[in-house]
Amino acid sequence: MSAPTPSNFNLVDYLSQRRELVEAALDASIPVVYPEKIYEAMRYSLLAGGKRLRPILCLAACELAGGTIEMAMPTACALEMIHTMSLIHDDLPAMDNDDFRRGKPTNHKKYGEDIAILAGDGLLAYAYEHVAIETQQVPPEQVLKVVARLGHAVAATGLVGGQVVDLESEGAEDVTLSTLNFIHAHKTGALLEASVLSGAELAGASQDLLNRCSKFARNIGLAFQIIDDVLDVTATSEKLGKTAGKDVAAQKATYPSLWGIPESKRQAQHLIEEAKAELAVYGEQSAPLQALADFITSRQS
Amino acid sequence: MSAPTPSNFNLVDYLSQRRELVEAALDASIPVVYPEKIYEAMRYSLLAGGKRLRPILCLAACELAGGTIEMAMPTACALEMIHTMSLIHDDLPAMDNDDFRRGKPTNHKKYGEDIAILAGDGLLAYAYEHVAIETQQVPPEQVLKVVARLGHAVAATGLVGGQVVDLESEGAEDVTLSTLNFIHAHKTGALLEASVLSGAELAGASQDLLNRCSKFARNIGLAFQIIDDVLDVTATSEKLGKTAGKDVAAQKATYPSLWGIPESKRQAQHLIEEAKAELAVYGEQSAPLQALADFITSRQS
Repeated sequence: MSAPTPSNFNLVDYLSQRRELVEAALDASIPVVYPEKIYEAMRYSLLAGGKRLRPILCLAACELAGGTIEMAMPTACALEMIHTMSLIHDDLPAMDNDDFRRGKPTNHKKYGEDIAILAGDGLLAYAYEHVAIETQQVPPEQVLKVVARLGHAVAATGLVGGQVVDLESEGAEDVTLSTLNFIHAHKTGALLEASVLSGAELAGASQDLLNRCSKFARNIGLAFQIIDDVLDVTATSEKLGKTAGKDVAAQKATYPSLWGIPESKRQAQHLIEEAKAELAVYGEQSAPLQALADFITSRQS
Repeated sequence: MSAPTPSNFNLVDYLSQRRELVEAALDASIPVVYPEKIYEAMRYSLLAGGKRLRPILCLAACELAGGTIEMAMPTACALEMIHTMSLIHDDLPAMDNDDFRRGKPTNHKKYGEDIAILAGDGLLAYAYEHVAIETQQVPPEQVLKVVARLGHAVAATGLVGGQVVDLESEGAEDVTLSTLNFIHAHKTGALLEASVLSGAELAGASQDLLNRCSKFARNIGLAFQIIDDVLDVTATSEKLGKTAGKDVAAQKATYPSLWGIPESKRQAQHLIEEAKAELAVYGEQSAPLQALADFITSRQS
C-alpha cells in the first residue's frame, strides 16, 4: 500500500530552503588556510552544487525522529564530504576516468591526480573529525554510533566493496541481477541508508523507526540507482552534468540492460511505493521524506 | 637534561612481545569475505610487517596514563590502518610512484591502481568504525575525542597537508628549514603525535601528562624523520625494504641536504634527549617510551 504524498507539502520550496542551509554549512565547514591548494581542491568538489540528497535525507530523518536540524547538520555535512570523496576517487584515470562532473572538470583535471587523491583522503578523514567535534546536544554514545555507521557505509562493507564488484563486472557478459543488486546496495545504497539512519539515530529514534527508516532507505537507494541507469540511456550529458551513455560504452551491466527501460521504471516506482508505505504511519510528519522518495523517480538529472 | 634509559628494561623483548600482540589484533581486525579481492588487498599491505611503531606508542602511552592494552588496542590497530592507507596512496604512480615497500611489491603493483586506491579508502574508513565499535571500558566522550584526533592527524590539517607541501617542494631549490619542518610535522609527526596522545587520552590522562606526551611525540616525530632522511642516504635498499636514495634522485629537500649528516644526527639526538626529559618525572613507568625514543635514533632501517 502506498501512501499519497500530502498535497500541502511543497517539495520545491523545501528542497531549495534545505539546500541553502546545507550549502552554508558546507561552505563554513572548510576554511582555506595554508597549504591553500588542498583546501581549495576539497572545496572545489564539495561546493560544486549537486542535489545534496544525502544531507537533506539526514536532516529530514532527524526531524522525523523528533530531533533538530542543528543536531544533524555536522553529520549531514560529513555525508556530503564522504560522497564527494567517492566521486573524486571514482573519476580518477585508474577508475572511471571521467573528465566532467556536475558540469565542471573533474578534480584531477583541475588539480592533478596527486592532489585529487589527497583531496579525497582529506575529505574522508575530516568527515569523522567534523562529526566528532561539531555535533551538539546529542549524547556521545549516539554520536559514536553514527561514526561507526559512516565507517561501515564507506569501507569494504559498503561503498568501497560495491565499487570493487562494479569494476570486476565491467565488460563481463554474465552479470546476474543479484550481482547488480550487490553493487548498487553497496556503491550507492549503503551511504543513502546511512544518511537516513544516522539522522534518525542522532535524535534517539526507537528501534521500530530505525527499522522503518532502513527499509525506506534501501528501497529509495535501489530506485535511485535504477533511475540513474535509465537516465544514463535517456538523458543528455548537458542535462546530467556528466558524460551520458558511459554505461553502454563501458559495457556495464545496468537495470535497463537486464529489464529494458519501461520495466526498469515500473520496478523503481514499486520500490518507491513500498518505501513510502513504511513511513505512512507517521502521517504529516513524514511528508518531507515521502516527497523526497517521489522526487527520486521523477527527477530528470 | 636527558633521562637515562633505565638499564633493566629490555627493549628488544618488549618490542617483540608488543609486535606479536599488535600483529594478532591486526590479523583479526579484517576477515576476508566477499568481495575477497579488496579484503586481501587491504590485508596485503596492513600485514606486511613494519615496525608497528604507532600502535606500540599508543599502547605504551595508554599504560603510562594508567590504562590497559585492551583499552587502546582498537585505536592502535586504527593507527596502523591509517598509516598503511597513507603508504598505499603515497606509493601510487600519481604520487611517489614506488614499486617496492617493506620489501614487497607495492599495493598497486600487486592489485592494480584502482584496487590500491580503494584499499586505502577502505582502510581509512574502517579505522574509524573499528575505534567506535571495538573500544571497550572507555567512556564514549573519550572515544569521540580519539576519533576527532585521528581525523585531524590525517586530514589537510595533518598528513594530507604535509604531503601536499612535500609534493609542491619537490625539485624546488629554495626549500627553507621552516617548510621542511612543516612537511614533516604534518606528514609524519601528526600521526605519531596522535598515536601517543590518543593512547594517553583513552586512559583519561591529566592535562599535564597530555602536554608532556605532546612534546615527547613532536620531538621523536621530528627525530624519526631526520633519521629517515639520513638512512635514505646511508642505507641500502635491501636494508630499508624500499628504494634507497629516492630523496636525492627526486631532488627532495632533506635534513642532510640542509645540515649534512653529522649535524643531522646531532640534532636528532638532541630532540630525543629533550623528549625523554619530558617523561623523566614518571620514572620507571616511562621506561618503554624512553626506550622507544632511543630506538628511533639508533635504528638502521
